[in-house]
Amino acid sequence: MRMIDIIEKKRDGKELTTAEINFFIEGYTKGDIPDYQASALAMAIYFQDMNDRERADLTRAMVESGDTIDLSAIDGVKVDKHSTGGVGDTTTLVLAPLVASLGVPVAKMSGRGLGHTGGTIDKLESIAGFHVELTREQFIDLVNRDKVAVIGQSGNLTPADKKLYALRDVTGTVNSIPLIASSIMSKKIAAGADAIVLDVKTGDGAFMKTQEDAEELAHAMVRIGNHVGRKTIAIISDMSQPLGFAIGNALEVKEAIETLQGKGPKDLTELVLTLGSQMVILAGKAKTSEEAKEMLLDAIHSGKALAKFKEFLANQGGDASIVDDLTKLPQAKYKIELPAKQSGYISRMVADEIGVASMILGAGRATKEDVIDLAVGLVLHKKVGDKVEEGESILTIYSNRENVEDVKQKLYDNIFIADTATTPTLIHTVITE
Amino acid sequence: MRMIDIIEKKRDGKELTTAEINFFIEGYTKGDIPDYQASALAMAIYFQDMNDRERADLTRAMVESGDTIDLSAIDGVKVDKHSTGGVGDTTTLVLAPLVASLGVPVAKMSGRGLGHTGGTIDKLESIAGFHVELTREQFIDLVNRDKVAVIGQSGNLTPADKKLYALRDVTGTVNSIPLIASSIMSKKIAAGADAIVLDVKTGDGAFMKTQEDAEELAHAMVRIGNHVGRKTIAIISDMSQPLGFAIGNALEVKEAIETLQGKGPKDLTELVLTLGSQMVILAGKAKTSEEAKEMLLDAIHSGKALAKFKEFLANQGGDASIVDDLTKLPQAKYKIELPAKQSGYISRMVADEIGVASMILGAGRATKEDVIDLAVGLVLHKKVGDKVEEGESILTIYSNRENVEDVKQKLYDNIFIADTATTPTLIHTVITE
Repeated sequence: MRMIDIIEKKRDGKELTTAEINFFIEGYTKGDIPDYQASALAMAIYFQDMNDRERADLTRAMVESGDTIDLSAIDGVKVDKHSTGGVGDTTTLVLAPLVASLGVPVAKMSGRGLGHTGGTIDKLESIAGFHVELTREQFIDLVNRDKVAVIGQSGNLTPADKKLYALRDVTGTVNSIPLIASSIMSKKIAAGADAIVLDVKTGDGAFMKTQEDAEELAHAMVRIGNHVGRKTIAIISDMSQPLGFAIGNALEVKEAIETLQGKGPKDLTELVLTLGSQMVILAGKAKTSEEAKEMLLDAIHSGKALAKFKEFLANQGGDASIVDDLTKLPQAKYKIELPAKQSGYISRMVADEIGVASMILGAGRATKEDVIDLAVGLVLHKKVGDKVEEGESILTIYSNRENVEDVKQKLYDNIFIADTATTPTLIHTVITE
Repeated sequence: MRMIDIIEKKRDGKELTTAEINFFIEGYTKGDIPDYQASALAMAIYFQDMNDRERADLTRAMVESGDTIDLSAIDGVKVDKHSTGGVGDTTTLVLAPLVASLGVPVAKMSGRGLGHTGGTIDKLESIAGFHVELTREQFIDLVNRDKVAVIGQSGNLTPADKKLYALRDVTGTVNSIPLIASSIMSKKIAAGADAIVLDVKTGDGAFMKTQEDAEELAHAMVRIGNHVGRKTIAIISDMSQPLGFAIGNALEVKEAIETLQGKGPKDLTELVLTLGSQMVILAGKAKTSEEAKEMLLDAIHSGKALAKFKEFLANQGGDASIVDDLTKLPQAKYKIELPAKQSGYISRMVADEIGVASMILGAGRATKEDVIDLAVGLVLHKKVGDKVEEGESILTIYSNRENVEDVKQKLYDNIFIADTATTPTLIHTVITE
């Protein structure tokens, strides 16, 4: 088998066999196939696409390119949730203890990564003492006993995907549905999930700017999951404005706790209940989404979910008392309001640019070397569709530096006020095939 | 400027600016732009094409990537001929002395290369003493005095093309009209031609298998030439069967001499007259192709063309007496006939496979290290459309080994006899814009 023939076959719009896809991924991982052939193939895939079988084979080959996590020692159906990324997305922090409190095992492997805020682990490290340095055995024992634990990424998972993603990033081949879908799904599958709930974002702040593109990606991932024997469901949700009110690490932990207490933002709560219902159903703990939602609401109102969060923190060395005293979380030195320059309705909040404002404050990493400031970020008081008076605060900037004129300018440039505005729909659709 | 933006722009079907094309070619030549980005761009060009302006800019950028030959010290319009390559193509050996005998300056830079037979220099080296080791000054003086000289390729011509072609060869991006056209034209322009006559082959033995593709390539090259100020004309000619009778180095020299004597194969003679007329016109020595053809025929019948060939050989150390005694050319040890297995008409001779048969005998190079056997090859007695009786020889195999069963099998597999057959049209069309 020769790589040149595989490139030409795909270039000419033909279907690649399982053996050809394996040859490419194995050879590329080992370094036998050079970058310049891989990028030519990626561009050919960009133009000629792959069918469902090829996409599943590509995913499987990337899973098999490295280590896989064996979660079979954990009782029950391990359901993982994945979001395609957005701004102020606090759902994981809420969902993990919430569904665990209903007996759904949450064995979460998480990372740090780059972005507007830190990753899940960065956020949890806002809590004094919390750590993810567990042995594989401790991790499995914790999930079996208390249904929830988070561990840092370890092992050589999907090296083919890592290498191919880095190459796509510099060769104009990121934005290809078969390549995006197989990349995401290979990581989830290698991490040991039995079933997967996907939150595919759409809008300004999302990778998929239009609902059509988001649906195409969602269908692609759901089909890959089902093809390789992992039940998969996707939600298409709005990311035209930030989710919830908080953007920042400690600020999002606080918002997660409030949401677990039933006092969270309406949109974040709605998304948590929608995603959580699907997780509960896939785990076999409920039959319908109505039944699942009832159970989730009961876990919130009864305090079961919050108690599970405390237990989870304590299990991993964290100071659980912060739940009852939120002032124990890292606090920013300055709180600066952003007053509206005119009266009207918030008509648009450009999510990704607001994310950038938060990153400029220090809440996220632009490069791997950046150190995150856990205390800083933004808390919105108004969202799209809300009425605002001239001079009224739209949001509060939490900063450790006094002069935030650059951040204010960025925010003013990306928050629009008009005479009328409507609240965007949060959940667009649920995709099951 | 960033390469990633250039890739994405072309990927999205947009037109690249002159500056962007220069940035790519300069950066790639210097090694600042890696192969994996160049191959991604090449694949994007494969799918999205380039317009005439982009193609001309790409050609110009490749010309400027290295040395260029300055032929301005040679009097007259320097017309170069280029063939897209075929089997048994002896035209250069005939055309060079023929048009030179009419006062058209032929300053030929030639190479060895890979293929079914050697390059023009290999063929000429069948003649004892002939060499191409001339200084640039000697070369120019010879052309000014006697109108014809051949020099080996020297200097660092179109390094961008060399690098890009090698990359395209292994990334499935060879077969792209803008990339093929700019590659060919950049080499001709860098070699100093004022005007260019292109012989674009079509059929089994050609790179362009269909007439439509050949015409598209011809138009592309003619437009590039005219865009960069070099008058360019293309002929589309048949390569569904080998050209002329001889395939091999010394064998083709012999055939060239016979053609210069007016005793050459009909198709080779016709093609030589067609290409030669265009060269004479571009050089300003005739107004119409009828007038030019008259002049060429006169040069053949008067012996002027043959005398020029002798002069040319002698000027470069060659034994010109071979022209009068063809047995002085390298002779093969064995002459083996290929008898027809049935009676009928030759309906098809798969040109490239017959070329391979000649290469197996040792007439050509498969790799740079191969040593050519100048004496060996094939001489056809029958061509497509010719009647043949069972047992009659279709061709003679000139070999230095006794057992040629492998070659015979290859030939039988690729020469077809049927009840009826027609002679293919040799010259399809002349393309001037």
